[in-house]
Amino acid sequence: MSQLSHLDRDGQPRMVDVAAKPVTARSATAAASVYLNEEAFALAVEGVSAKGNVFAVARIAGIMAAKRTAELIPLCHPLPLSHVSVDFDTDAVERCIRIRATCHVSAQTGVEMEAMTAASVAALTIYDMCKAVDRTIRIADLRLIAKSGGRSGSFVAA
Amino acid sequence: MSQLSHLDRDGQPRMVDVAAKPVTARSATAAASVYLNEEAFALAVEGVSAKGNVFAVARIAGIMAAKRTAELIPLCHPLPLSHVSVDFDTDAVERCIRIRATCHVSAQTGVEMEAMTAASVAALTIYDMCKAVDRTIRIADLRLIAKSGGRSGSFVAA
Amino acid sequence: MSQLSHLDRDGQPRMVDVAAKPVTARSATAAASVYLNEEAFALAVEGVSAKGNVFAVARIAGIMAAKRTAELIPLCHPLPLSHVSVDFDTDAVERCIRIRATCHVSAQTGVEMEAMTAASVAALTIYDMCKAVDRTIRIADLRLIAKSGGRSGSFVAA
Amino acid sequence: MSQLSHLDRDGQPRMVDVAAKPVTARSATAAASVYLNEEAFALAVEGVSAKGNVFAVARIAGIMAAKRTAELIPLCHPLPLSHVSVDFDTDAVERCIRIRATCHVSAQTGVEMEAMTAASVAALTIYDMCKAVDRTIRIADLRLIAKSGGRSGSFVAA
Amino acid sequence: MSQLSHLDRDGQPRMVDVAAKPVTARSATAAASVYLNEEAFALAVEGVSAKGNVFAVARIAGIMAAKRTAELIPLCHPLPLSHVSVDFDTDAVERCIRIRATCHVSAQTGVEMEAMTAASVAALTIYDMCKAVDRTIRIADLRLIAKSGGRSGSFVAA
Amino acid sequence: MSQLSHLDRDGQPRMVDVAAKPVTARSATAAASVYLNEEAFALAVEGVSAKGNVFAVARIAGIMAAKRTAELIPLCHPLPLSHVSVDFDTDAVERCIRIRATCHVSAQTGVEMEAMTAASVAALTIYDMCKAVDRTIRIADLRLIAKSGGRSGSFVAA
Repeated sequence: MSQLSHLDRDGQPRMVDVAAKPVTARSATAAASVYLNEEAFALAVEGVSAKGNVFAVARIAGIMAAKRTAELIPLCHPLPLSHVSVDFDTDAVERCIRIRATCHVSAQTGVEMEAMTAASVAALTIYDMCKAVDRTIRIADLRLIAKSGGRSGSFVAA
Repeated sequence: MSQLSHLDRDGQPRMVDVAAKPVTARSATAAASVYLNEEAFALAVEGVSAKGNVFAVARIAGIMAAKRTAELIPLCHPLPLSHVSVDFDTDAVERCIRIRATCHVSAQTGVEMEAMTAASVAALTIYDMCKAVDRTIRIADLRLIAKSGGRSGSFVAA
Repeated sequence: MSQLSHLDRDGQPRMVDVAAKPVTARSATAAASVYLNEEAFALAVEGVSAKGNVFAVARIAGIMAAKRTAELIPLCHPLPLSHVSVDFDTDAVERCIRIRATCHVSAQTGVEMEAMTAASVAALTIYDMCKAVDRTIRIADLRLIAKSGGRSGSFVAA
Repeated sequence: MSQLSHLDRDGQPRMVDVAAKPVTARSATAAASVYLNEEAFALAVEGVSAKGNVFAVARIAGIMAAKRTAELIPLCHPLPLSHVSVDFDTDAVERCIRIRATCHVSAQTGVEMEAMTAASVAALTIYDMCKAVDRTIRIADLRLIAKSGGRSGSFVAA
Repeated sequence: MSQLSHLDRDGQPRMVDVAAKPVTARSATAAASVYLNEEAFALAVEGVSAKGNVFAVARIAGIMAAKRTAELIPLCHPLPLSHVSVDFDTDAVERCIRIRATCHVSAQTGVEMEAMTAASVAALTIYDMCKAVDRTIRIADLRLIAKSGGRSGSFVAA
Repeated sequence: MSQLSHLDRDGQPRMVDVAAKPVTARSATAAASVYLNEEAFALAVEGVSAKGNVFAVARIAGIMAAKRTAELIPLCHPLPLSHVSVDFDTDAVERCIRIRATCHVSAQTGVEMEAMTAASVAALTIYDMCKAVDRTIRIADLRLIAKSGGRSGSFVAA
């Protein structure tokens, strides 16, 4: 059985040594979905078409959070991100806002966690801005969509 | 139709004024689920029973993240948290780790976002520690379970 | 001659003890102006009318910075801000964007620095977003416009 | 008409991708001026000649703020700064403290924002330390003085 | 045998609930000593008498660190510090710099950790500024000197 | 007599320019000791053997603090750490917990301060978790154990 790379031989956590890995161009895209009730969905989408505010705030929150990933996730390496973007789609049938966050870096380790953190904080920000009209908001499907670069090669979610 | 409280009359976001609200004891519990493949689930759970490390790291990450909620979520108020806890349950049938985060505060506004952020960062930390053996980890069901205190009264998720 | 309150009797800086001061409702408004060349001003204002993006980003940056004032300004007290807003006006004659930031708190000390920091970081964010088309952007007139609450009474700039 | 580089084709903000740009040695110097009333100016300058405290605190605040620029300015890239300095001059005629902040880096993007942030936070710190004796302090002329390195070449303010 | 208050009944760490404790005025003073070789001690002390710089930087670092204690120490509560000071004494016989850090707060829990963190970061800053001329610097005797306020009463180190 | 490298020719502190130094692989190990009374030592060690909690929390705190060294120590350069580990030993005779922290980086300057900060915050965290049963805990022997890489060559403490 393989091992969790964040634990040493005694099972103790440490920040894995990546010094011997080559610097390569790396990219990762993560997704999340925010499910809202009718009223909250209408207000959020209206916010989008009329003034862009709910999504504008969530986008900035996600981008800024990507830059602080290594402060939040204990064993993540600090990375000199070269690009972060966060985008939104709305699905009126499911009353759902879909988030995609993409990060790029030239580094010795990947940017999955930065993309996951950006998507997560963008989702939490939508939650925060809509929670006064919907206490049942649910964030789901937070996962990696694609990554490239690094020893383990490219990945695209099924 | 009601309004999103984080937007002013012109639809511009601001940090809502809570100065006139009474200070009351408030509590919130949020939940999240992390779905893993067979290998990652076994390693994480073994980590639990043998050395507690995966869950120990995720617990500390969640508690520390709760304290930084107002830095991450743009329109959240800074709150003097009086209690934070993060707990884990494992579901071998679903190969899922269930997270519950609870926050308490005496303040003029609630602690939902602190509990949601703690659960979210605990989940991301599990993701980070297991991602080397499972690229398909999925975080789901991030939502409010219960809250009490404040003008809007208590809430328990259905 | 009076003394700088941040220095002790030996002239050494310390965080002034405010424990004996009463908790009162306090408010402060700060202003700043950002002067742009023709091209940058047109793009920023177009950004405003069409999509709100330059100002949306600067507003969020200013609100978030207000919450981190005590981390940036060495001798500032941490304050539980109850309200922050940042607003913009454009002056086509002067090709200038005028910023106003307002903070409220119930505390033993005032919120001037939080309002000043919010206005300053909002201005720096406009600078950042427009600097590619104008290297001569100038931030000016960063000052306190009004304050209320506390022993020293209200103040309105001349 | 050119475009604001922080906005994508749809006018949405994102952290611009700098991955394809070469790493070059870059430098930037920013300036700011703090105008004080007679009493505050005398105390600040006395602080300088006798014990160095006002300027010592402001210098450290500026240097530390430079390192946190990417946390404050939403679309700034995190940069591995190789040098930061902050210096002060006093102008008794204008009753003004002039600040210069210089940053160096080897990176794919420039350090203007780091220098601007350092000058800005140094100015805010002087404001904070003198505000008890002067409510009319004004920060002005915050601007780029010089930059070098990078595709767009060198710049020296007129 | 008593219990570690940061662990719950199952031995899992959490941020202890202090909501039921009364708000009282609390104070704590911590100390640390930095031992230097002859050359580093002379340079640091000369720095003191001539320009105050080593101690000025260390003092500001300690004060700022006190405000970030809850970010660094996982189970510490965020506290609205009302006062922080850091002072230095030199002992030429022992070639030692002695640091004292004092914090005050009105809160439901004490400020020992804030005082300990301020003394610790002030000591690390002296280490950083002198390490180029002395690789054998040693920080010792980091401990609580006195505390007052709270249920457990006053304490003065023997 | 040599000079403190953090001070310029006028004795003013600045972040030293390391741009001309080569990027080399660097490593540093720091140590600290935490002395406890009988009850606290027994509880901490029991925590270790039974549930690992005291040391698990302190390890994570130390690793996370290493990543924030440049935020805490005013004149430290931000570094892209490639590895951080924190380990513990117990000495029942001295009733002492010994901490070792190791950091690696490929950079233009060394990682002593990161290792020292990790050891220091790990020690403070043990203090925090045990202080309810022992007010006389003492942190001592915080020092550099070894370093390698960089112009000044390797160093191993006597």
